[in-house]
Amino acid sequence: MNAEIIAVGSELLLGQIANTNAKFISSQLSELGINVYYHTVIGDNGGRLKKAIEIAESRADLIIFSGGLGPTKDDLTKETIASHLNVPLTFDEVALETVEQFFASQGRAMTENNRKQALVLKGSEVLPNHNGLAPGMILEKDGRTYILLPGPPKELEPMFQFEAKPRLARKISEGGVIISHVLRFYGIGEAELETELQQLLDEQTNPTLAPLATYGEVTLRITAKADSEKEAWDLINKKKAEVLKIVGKYHYGNDDDSLASKTVEMLLANNLTISAAESLTAGLFQSELAEISGVSGTLVGGVVTYTEEAKIRQLGIPAELLKKHGIVSSEFAGSMAKHVREKFGTDIGVGLTGAAGHDPHDGQPAGTIWIGIAFGDEVITKKLQLSGLRNTNRLRTVKHTFSYLIRLLKEKGYKVK
Amino acid sequence: MNAEIIAVGSELLLGQIANTNAKFISSQLSELGINVYYHTVIGDNGGRLKKAIEIAESRADLIIFSGGLGPTKDDLTKETIASHLNVPLTFDEVALETVEQFFASQGRAMTENNRKQALVLKGSEVLPNHNGLAPGMILEKDGRTYILLPGPPKELEPMFQFEAKPRLARKISEGGVIISHVLRFYGIGEAELETELQQLLDEQTNPTLAPLATYGEVTLRITAKADSEKEAWDLINKKKAEVLKIVGKYHYGNDDDSLASKTVEMLLANNLTISAAESLTAGLFQSELAEISGVSGTLVGGVVTYTEEAKIRQLGIPAELLKKHGIVSSEFAGSMAKHVREKFGTDIGVGLTGAAGHDPHDGQPAGTIWIGIAFGDEVITKKLQLSGLRNTNRLRTVKHTFSYLIRLLKEKGYKVK
Repeated sequence: MNAEIIAVGSELLLGQIANTNAKFISSQLSELGINVYYHTVIGDNGGRLKKAIEIAESRADLIIFSGGLGPTKDDLTKETIASHLNVPLTFDEVALETVEQFFASQGRAMTENNRKQALVLKGSEVLPNHNGLAPGMILEKDGRTYILLPGPPKELEPMFQFEAKPRLARKISEGGVIISHVLRFYGIGEAELETELQQLLDEQTNPTLAPLATYGEVTLRITAKADSEKEAWDLINKKKAEVLKIVGKYHYGNDDDSLASKTVEMLLANNLTISAAESLTAGLFQSELAEISGVSGTLVGGVVTYTEEAKIRQLGIPAELLKKHGIVSSEFAGSMAKHVREKFGTDIGVGLTGAAGHDPHDGQPAGTIWIGIAFGDEVITKKLQLSGLRNTNRLRTVKHTFSYLIRLLKEKGYKVK
Repeated sequence: MNAEIIAVGSELLLGQIANTNAKFISSQLSELGINVYYHTVIGDNGGRLKKAIEIAESRADLIIFSGGLGPTKDDLTKETIASHLNVPLTFDEVALETVEQFFASQGRAMTENNRKQALVLKGSEVLPNHNGLAPGMILEKDGRTYILLPGPPKELEPMFQFEAKPRLARKISEGGVIISHVLRFYGIGEAELETELQQLLDEQTNPTLAPLATYGEVTLRITAKADSEKEAWDLINKKKAEVLKIVGKYHYGNDDDSLASKTVEMLLANNLTISAAESLTAGLFQSELAEISGVSGTLVGGVVTYTEEAKIRQLGIPAELLKKHGIVSSEFAGSMAKHVREKFGTDIGVGLTGAAGHDPHDGQPAGTIWIGIAFGDEVITKKLQLSGLRNTNRLRTVKHTFSYLIRLLKEKGYKVK
């Protein structure tokens, strides 16, 4: 079954909103193993909608529409489909009652155009709308399936998930399942990952492998088709082991994990507390940690030391160390980590210092960054040489620090979960 | 000029990401008065891309592509266009040098597929990529304009805005000019702003007025068409004065200003230094400040105090104050501000405390937040009652604090710039 999603709404073409409905429906269809080959967006224009339907019919057997079911003149999705397929519109009693009750409960007079929302394609299965007035529809015609959904995400999402999707699943299941599993990597580029996995990528059939670069990370999606969930997972796990044998050292997590969530998860699992002294990142490391729910079990706090004086005064770093090695140095990062760990009484202390911007800082070229990690009595430092813009470098520094902490904890034999 | 936007990328059809590029490009084109009639999304498939181009050519004279310019085998946008239009690909020297320099600076080996990113359509105008490796292109052929842009938004957005858009503007202005000016507001909703400006919105012809809500802020875009830049600006400034007469108290900046940049600008202009003590925001306030270039002239540093103990020990707040008023209180926020100001020796100290999450904290309902500002000997506090999710509330707290600081400085008669 091949699907096309047609979103109707001039607000999309004006760039006022993004087409998150297509994203939502696509991710839901991918779980069912239904291929989506096209998204189309058109404005509130009957002629162009008709042409878009004709094109979609030439390349898809499942066509899903979002938007254009409301009460205004601009809303003409079902009218256009009715005329195109030569199927009359008829009032749905339940939907009509819903609309009438809504206006009665609001104490407002119902205008005639609101009745229009209760019109449905004759012969379609009506999908109830629990979060709005316009019902959805599924119509089977000439071997194709047409699904009409309302535009507002809070109406469309539950309607698709709880009404349309189960019906589609029954239609296509005929016994099989499709499961996807995402592996997450840090510290390797997309091209480099593909080169490393070239043979596996060339051989892929089932499961399939799809690498993707996003925000400085790389993911690899493994998708398996099989007769049962267990069989699909067996296929995935076998392929996953082959992948990790080659690029396992860059692998930090799966599916919904993030570098921050994985860091917090490992710190919590091992009852470790953390604090940080931040210069170039100025609180970003701690703030990213604090995005993760439950972080208060590990993050005690830290210091932002932006000026030189703050570094010495707030952390108690000897002025001579600064004089001897400079701010952008292994010694200084290590000292920041050690002092913040002592100050906050935590198991781990992190120190971040460097030249984030496009100018050299303290005699070091732009993009030179030092990460210090104090772990018990041990102090470890690591140098980065980044080439991005100032704020990209700040974010990269934070991500590198997470990935470095995760690797360090693994190497020291701490629990992964 | 009628445009179609074709986004290429299987991750869009799998529902992994939304097509925010089409939204961005559409809003930019709408500023130029260029109609967008279609968005199309297709996967990384040459055959289907070719068909999509043919359809687009039948209904648009400006076709903008996003994605598929990277180094992997899946990236085939320019290859497909080259073959479809019968235009050869050729290496762009500047782009090639950029790719080579990037790998040299990273100390990483450049794989052969990375060179591919420097290939461009012969005869096209090459658009430099300041945030990545793959350049963009504009090609004129048979009366149509083809624009190719890289997929990652952080590369696509500046490239479209600063490279492609000015070229399109010159192309369509035919001697005239179109100028847009954006007014930025905080603390007023979009519906409320529209109600306040109803008469101006109803009367609009040239300049046009377009309100838009984004990330808790509201903007109003004023767009004027005229024969010269001066005439356009005269029209804009006249309309701007009328707008600010009505909603001026919510206005904090223009165009590329952000709440953070405006805060930094005002602090620098008045030689004021700042420090912060952050609890729920855990460094986000300082990190957002530090995104602004030049911030080291005002941000000295601060403290993140996530646990109760850290609050008392690191800031020196008396335990009895905590006991009497609790952590989520006016008194505690004020005390955080006062103590961090003293500790870091700054003109202004900021204290942020509250119940960010969906659970009550310290006896206060979820979403209760206190902002404390110590300014010289004066301590001012302000309560927020937010209703969003945890991380939305953290970001809102930071934005409110910026807006509050800006208003405070204005009220005290400090220089705006």
